Amino acid sequence: MLGHLYDKQDCSAARALEIVGERWSLLILRDAMFRGHTRYSDFMKTLEIAPNILSKRLSGFVAAGLMVQGEDGAYQLTEKGLAFKPVIMALTAWGDQWVGPGPVEFITKDTRAPVRVELRGDAGEVTDLARVGVKPRD
Amino acid sequence: MLGHLYDKQDCSAARALEIVGERWSLLILRDAMFRGHTRYSDFMKTLEIAPNILSKRLSGFVAAGLMVQGEDGAYQLTEKGLAFKPVIMALTAWGDQWVGPGPVEFITKDTRAPVRVELRGDAGEVTDLARVGVKPRD
Repeated sequence: MLGHLYDKQDCSAARALEIVGERWSLLILRDAMFRGHTRYSDFMKTLEIAPNILSKRLSGFVAAGLMVQGEDGAYQLTEKGLAFKPVIMALTAWGDQWVGPGPVEFITKDTRAPVRVELRGDAGEVTDLARVGVKPRD
Repeated sequence: MLGHLYDKQDCSAARALEIVGERWSLLILRDAMFRGHTRYSDFMKTLEIAPNILSKRLSGFVAAGLMVQGEDGAYQLTEKGLAFKPVIMALTAWGDQWVGPGPVEFITKDTRAPVRVELRGDAGEVTDLARVGVKPRD
């Protein structure tokens, strides 16, 4: 029980969700990261999303520093945006395992070998998720 | 460009988001996993959530197999629900790094040593996120 550790929603997961807190945001990031989408029209083609919602989400990502918009109108992920990759990968891995295998696998681009999201301890040891808990930050 | 690999939203991330596709769902799972919440009243205390939304989300998790409800009314995470832990951890790590350090750290319960979400290749090597791409599943 960590009630006193959190000031209501003041945890990093909650603050991350303030930026990407719904389904479309995560699917837009997915397509930017793994399909190389950079243009409004790219996202419109693959996401069945209302145009006004897409515009709002892309502007939101620029405002939050996850994307920059070039003079040519293209949206490019920043380092902050690219850093969201493990979240999308963990979400995909869960879906692959618990809903059903999806159409793609994650690989290292140069070697084409599989890459996975793993929980690892300080010495690099694999840690079972049942063993993972939380403590107050030092 | 993977347009032809995905049938619109038919990827595992999209299907995972159909189950936990908005902010409250992820915060409810967070509190179940890391604060040990099991009761409706536990979640009401820590989440500023409308009662009808909380009821709907908890019922949804039971229907989707992420939680079971005992005879005493308590909600317990199933293996499928617990398997969502890396998603919450990756989301928290992103917030810690890019929004600001949150109040908790992830640890192995028995040793109290830190645990992190890492991207690892087949030989266990750490893989930089810029190198990660996708290929069609074999």
